Amino acid sequence: MRLGRIAHQEGLCFAIIEGEPGNLVAKEISGTPFTPPEPTGREFAEAEFRLLAPTLPTKVVALGRNYADHVAEVFAKSADDLPPTIFVKPSTAVIGPGAPVKIPEFATNVEFEGELAVVISKVSKNIDPDKWQEHVLGFVICNDVSSRDLQFQDGQWARAKGIDTFCPLGPWIETDINKFDLDNTKINAYLTHDGQRVQKQDSNTNQMIVKMGGILAEISASMTLLPGDVVTTGSPAGTAPMVPGDTIEIEIPGIGSLTNPIERA
Amino acid sequence: MRLGRIAHQEGLCFAIIEGEPGNLVAKEISGTPFTPPEPTGREFAEAEFRLLAPTLPTKVVALGRNYADHVAEVFAKSADDLPPTIFVKPSTAVIGPGAPVKIPEFATNVEFEGELAVVISKVSKNIDPDKWQEHVLGFVICNDVSSRDLQFQDGQWARAKGIDTFCPLGPWIETDINKFDLDNTKINAYLTHDGQRVQKQDSNTNQMIVKMGGILAEISASMTLLPGDVVTTGSPAGTAPMVPGDTIEIEIPGIGSLTNPIERA
Repeated sequence: MRLGRIAHQEGLCFAIIEGEPGNLVAKEISGTPFTPPEPTGREFAEAEFRLLAPTLPTKVVALGRNYADHVAEVFAKSADDLPPTIFVKPSTAVIGPGAPVKIPEFATNVEFEGELAVVISKVSKNIDPDKWQEHVLGFVICNDVSSRDLQFQDGQWARAKGIDTFCPLGPWIETDINKFDLDNTKINAYLTHDGQRVQKQDSNTNQMIVKMGGILAEISASMTLLPGDVVTTGSPAGTAPMVPGDTIEIEIPGIGSLTNPIERA
Repeated sequence: MRLGRIAHQEGLCFAIIEGEPGNLVAKEISGTPFTPPEPTGREFAEAEFRLLAPTLPTKVVALGRNYADHVAEVFAKSADDLPPTIFVKPSTAVIGPGAPVKIPEFATNVEFEGELAVVISKVSKNIDPDKWQEHVLGFVICNDVSSRDLQFQDGQWARAKGIDTFCPLGPWIETDINKFDLDNTKINAYLTHDGQRVQKQDSNTNQMIVKMGGILAEISASMTLLPGDVVTTGSPAGTAPMVPGDTIEIEIPGIGSLTNPIERA
């Protein structure tokens, strides 16, 4: 099941999203995604609604350097020498599908990072790595937008990755987590620049160093995760610069595509 | 005026806090601290209430390496070679006065950092450094508790400084910001270990590298600050390890004292 948050002519609501892009239908549910969804009977055709970020996280906790191919590419080191590290993207960075990533003048060399992320379903502390599924509402795509220059200049990544609009989430939450083979799920990214759409990321979760259970256990040993919080699992190789006028599309088969235009702030 | 958040026998509320410790009075206000406080007429004597963290921030944004004396002490470098850097402490790390800082086994070499912090009063982006006062509800004390071992092992500070309970805030919000001389405000810390209370931090905001207006301008150029968010300005020298059984007290004259016991998680 796909759970989205939508804006329609009369307001906002959570909804079950059915169909395929071009022919989507949103079926309003009562309450929030954290209880069994009950359709109200109101439905919206694709032209009548806009998808928003499907969750309102209090924090987005991310694992850096968690794909061997990306560590080699960005840090010019072997992942053996540079273990994964935790960082936090603030809630104010979150945007939804179709909303523009706005790059301020001082954020130079801004790259996309297409990532598989989870939405937390309940208050979670000290998650058992073998029972991580009990704490996850579903999967979502996260674009961990990063200013490489600020990232390395600052040392700490909070600013380079925490700028307003630098955390697109979407297009919805796929709750059927068991249909994914996390040792073999594709992560693709397509960048459109000057009208040319080129595949940049062409990787797979088989490149993940710390696996899902380990990630959630490690983070929740320190930080309580709250319903709606997002944990994103790191970017594979293929990240590349984006400039105003571009469009970036992250695709994870089984979830869908998260597309955002790039603008100057 | 001092604005606090309190727990009393019938629930929680915001309140004006008057008197001195040992003889405090809490005068309940209607609404939140973000509108002119209107006393409801209900009052509580000190024995009848407990102070909580005075704000519920969506994020705590911090400036690391912003006191010359502390940079020399922890990083063994001159501040000229190592400029201030921004990081984020998640809301789940926040606790109030008197609540225990709980140290998990894996967080070794845990130190206090007594800091002067501000509570943001309104949605703020691109703050004019000369008008920072218009965005600040008041001052609060922040103890930026940090596991030095995790901090340097991880590289990123989010975990070392983001563990649950690692962000004591309090004891209240002092709204009379103009009474402080930010070029000459004392920051003291007293650690009680084995029954001995010893002053550890004995510094002054005159050691700040980036000043208040510059800090708020720099952070809000990237991240929108929301009402209740906390920006903390960095720790001066004197930070030292704490172990379960200790008590740490941060004092900033003009605000008050923030005291927390240390426990094993």
